[in-house]
Amino acid sequence: MGEPGNGFVWPVRVYWEDTDAGGIVFYANYLKFFERARTEWLRELGIEQQRLRDTLNGMFVVTDTLLKYRQPARLDDFLLVTARLTEAGRASLTIAQSAYRCAAGTHTAANVPRDPHAQGNTLLCEGSIRIGWVDASTLRPHRIPDTILQALQRP
Amino acid sequence: MGEPGNGFVWPVRVYWEDTDAGGIVFYANYLKFFERARTEWLRELGIEQQRLRDTLNGMFVVTDTLLKYRQPARLDDFLLVTARLTEAGRASLTIAQSAYRCAAGTHTAANVPRDPHAQGNTLLCEGSIRIGWVDASTLRPHRIPDTILQALQRP
Amino acid sequence: MGEPGNGFVWPVRVYWEDTDAGGIVFYANYLKFFERARTEWLRELGIEQQRLRDTLNGMFVVTDTLLKYRQPARLDDFLLVTARLTEAGRASLTIAQSAYRCAAGTHTAANVPRDPHAQGNTLLCEGSIRIGWVDASTLRPHRIPDTILQALQRP
Amino acid sequence: MGEPGNGFVWPVRVYWEDTDAGGIVFYANYLKFFERARTEWLRELGIEQQRLRDTLNGMFVVTDTLLKYRQPARLDDFLLVTARLTEAGRASLTIAQSAYRCAAGTHTAANVPRDPHAQGNTLLCEGSIRIGWVDASTLRPHRIPDTILQALQRP
Repeated sequence: MGEPGNGFVWPVRVYWEDTDAGGIVFYANYLKFFERARTEWLRELGIEQQRLRDTLNGMFVVTDTLLKYRQPARLDDFLLVTARLTEAGRASLTIAQSAYRCAAGTHTAANVPRDPHAQGNTLLCEGSIRIGWVDASTLRPHRIPDTILQALQRP
Repeated sequence: MGEPGNGFVWPVRVYWEDTDAGGIVFYANYLKFFERARTEWLRELGIEQQRLRDTLNGMFVVTDTLLKYRQPARLDDFLLVTARLTEAGRASLTIAQSAYRCAAGTHTAANVPRDPHAQGNTLLCEGSIRIGWVDASTLRPHRIPDTILQALQRP
Repeated sequence: MGEPGNGFVWPVRVYWEDTDAGGIVFYANYLKFFERARTEWLRELGIEQQRLRDTLNGMFVVTDTLLKYRQPARLDDFLLVTARLTEAGRASLTIAQSAYRCAAGTHTAANVPRDPHAQGNTLLCEGSIRIGWVDASTLRPHRIPDTILQALQRP
Repeated sequence: MGEPGNGFVWPVRVYWEDTDAGGIVFYANYLKFFERARTEWLRELGIEQQRLRDTLNGMFVVTDTLLKYRQPARLDDFLLVTARLTEAGRASLTIAQSAYRCAAGTHTAANVPRDPHAQGNTLLCEGSIRIGWVDASTLRPHRIPDTILQALQRP
């Protein structure tokens, strides 16, 4: 679901499991939404995390998170979550991410919206996630495998 | 995503958030997967839970859960979750639900599998969920509104 | 925190993370509360699960859950969760568990209540959990190690 | 559990629910651990959040989170989580928080460790959480009630 300028976009529906007694999405759960989008972005690039672990004995771990909460989401809201690589180091990647609420009534099963900046949409949460590559057994940092770096550089 | 005989079917991807240190999906999370399928089944019938609450001041609460775990799911697995109404009382509904793992390599973004019983698929978890209709303020049981019962009876 | 007749008792406080937009504890989270109590019960018997895995390469997995929800819990509620072994097979254990809400004002930091059946307490959720012992690598069922069975039989 | 210089300290045990398939605590769950500590810190100051909501129709919502992950925690680890007020504005509070793993074997039921900086302990995660006071119905920002600000200023 790539969009020029937005990077990768992934849809997320808000269920009961995501909400808290304030009637809104529990703030920690945006980290889950952001990770789903990162995982699908990597999958689109041909990178399956379970397979990496089985074949390379390595995995990504999150090392830094910075989130700003702008507006709350509620049960049944339909969100678009973005992921855009902002920095690729030898052992870590930094990804900018945002969650937008889609205006009500703009989608059906046959017509899922993909443009987070469409009219009527609202920015709910934005932030930056840094992930590092580690050996899955020792959890020590390692250089990101070339196959992953090459997949990231593909246009 | 209705399938004759299966009832409603909803796809669920397994992410890091769903797993535990045993390397498998944390068993409590099947209740989340089952609820996502129930929610989408109700939505397909025209029933939006947030709207029901705003307009009727009522909501469904889970009163009984019975789950049997057959096989574990792992990171990146692609599941199909079913929901089928087995009993509709005045104040409660009983829904039979199952989760199946799709055989690897059977799907692409353009071709999402829908048949939980397709060859190579594996039954992971099955069970029964009973939900009751309550007043959202008092949480006391009430008769299920006719609009909901009628939607459920539509062929 | 053993109590004659009740089996093991473990206190659980309700936080935001445990609640949903219904204003009550999300039903799936009672499985978490019950597991905390089972873990602490095993720990009291001298059984540390991470150590078992490191030394015996085995672990318990949940195979069956049956829960009945009687009354809802809310933010800040203080619960007592019980765990009592009801059946010990060769490869599985069955544990009866309940969660009670303590009457308000009955406890302080220095005086944590321990009797789930004290006057004013309310039964919220009860059920039965079956766990099986599996090889941690293959996830195949195995006989429960004697050291565990012996610890369970100690008076 | 106040400690001079550390601010408030709250113990957290790592259970299966907290871990992921990497064998470590899922990073989003530190936000839960931090919130438990903030909640208990407020409770120690006489501030019960459910009561505030019932009486003042207001609640705290998280507006900013910044977390750095230093070392992973594993199943059965015993953590100490700190909370220290670093800034009190008219409508928001900023709290510095950390999680430390206690060295193995340093505690029993009768002797819970309280010093996060004790020898052998390890800093796992640290960060800063900003919370704002909002009207519980409109979710709009409001001045923090004087009763709360006064409780925070008590020595």
